[in-house]
Amino acid sequence: MTGSGNCWKPAALMRQLQVPFDWIEVDLLKGQSRSPEFLAKNANGKVPLLEVAPGQLLAESNAMLCYLADGTPYLPADRWQRAKVFEWLFFEQYSHEPYIATVRWWVHYLHKQDEWRDKIAEAMKKGYAALDVMEAQLQRTSFIAGNAYTIADIALYAYTHAAPQGGYDLKRYPAIGAWLDRVSAQPRFEPMVR
Amino acid sequence: MTGSGNCWKPAALMRQLQVPFDWIEVDLLKGQSRSPEFLAKNANGKVPLLEVAPGQLLAESNAMLCYLADGTPYLPADRWQRAKVFEWLFFEQYSHEPYIATVRWWVHYLHKQDEWRDKIAEAMKKGYAALDVMEAQLQRTSFIAGNAYTIADIALYAYTHAAPQGGYDLKRYPAIGAWLDRVSAQPRFEPMVR
Repeated sequence: MTGSGNCWKPAALMRQLQVPFDWIEVDLLKGQSRSPEFLAKNANGKVPLLEVAPGQLLAESNAMLCYLADGTPYLPADRWQRAKVFEWLFFEQYSHEPYIATVRWWVHYLHKQDEWRDKIAEAMKKGYAALDVMEAQLQRTSFIAGNAYTIADIALYAYTHAAPQGGYDLKRYPAIGAWLDRVSAQPRFEPMVR
Repeated sequence: MTGSGNCWKPAALMRQLQVPFDWIEVDLLKGQSRSPEFLAKNANGKVPLLEVAPGQLLAESNAMLCYLADGTPYLPADRWQRAKVFEWLFFEQYSHEPYIATVRWWVHYLHKQDEWRDKIAEAMKKGYAALDVMEAQLQRTSFIAGNAYTIADIALYAYTHAAPQGGYDLKRYPAIGAWLDRVSAQPRFEPMVR
């Protein structure tokens, strides 16, 4: 789905790796990820879904990043460095996306900013906590998992740079701001359509 | 923390791999994961936290599983098989743990089953959806990511087998029931203290 950070992630990496792919649009707002045809491919009913060969399907955006980056500098060969990349990938799906992407969905797509005010305020506390953790890390290192650009940066760029669409104020975070610029300056980086 | 599925995961794997380790108890109910000393080690304020050498720290239980299992049969060498393991590890942290572990926390530890009835019912819908996805998979394969036991089984065993403590009815899921038995029959498997 265009505008989905999770969908943008594997597409961004494939562009950087110069791996050709087709993008098939699935519109969540029209329930297309819950159709019987889609559920037969991904029982979890979520996008993105990567088809690497006919019928060979992989769900979970960050699993796609790990698969596609395998053997490339985007997923380090060093065991400890790779562990730190995994750490940030799980952080992203557990502590960041559920608050930052979800608030953006509620506000920017569903226009619930007034109706769901309390629920949004509650989620934003946890979203800001995740941004605080990132800011502290990015005050120490150029990229999120260390001093090299990896798939952890792609994963966290997706919804961090789009957070203002949910009402988050990124001006509080100078190190995150500088990092967003470093990420988008990477070779063959293609911006997310928001 | 004893009783935490996320903490049990790396401990269970280290026992299976016969990697010696020390367990340092951190009691969330006493706020010990939010102390200044703990936050200096993990800014995200969560357990478990793995110290592989003095000051060399790794957060995120599933990142620990990937790190510890690297080069062992618990994380397959085959690229596609490994991708499927990653897929289930991210599924666990995004679609399973936030509903199944969280409801168990609310009910079993915080005793909010009456006070938070609506919130619990809402979360359980998503928890049952995650169990439905697992049941469909386990009707097709012996283990969650295929026909071999991997770290994806450890990750999903943790809160699945403890789900009844949150009020989930696992009797609806015969394939999950048979799989729980297969997992706990693995060599050097040590049960989680619940």
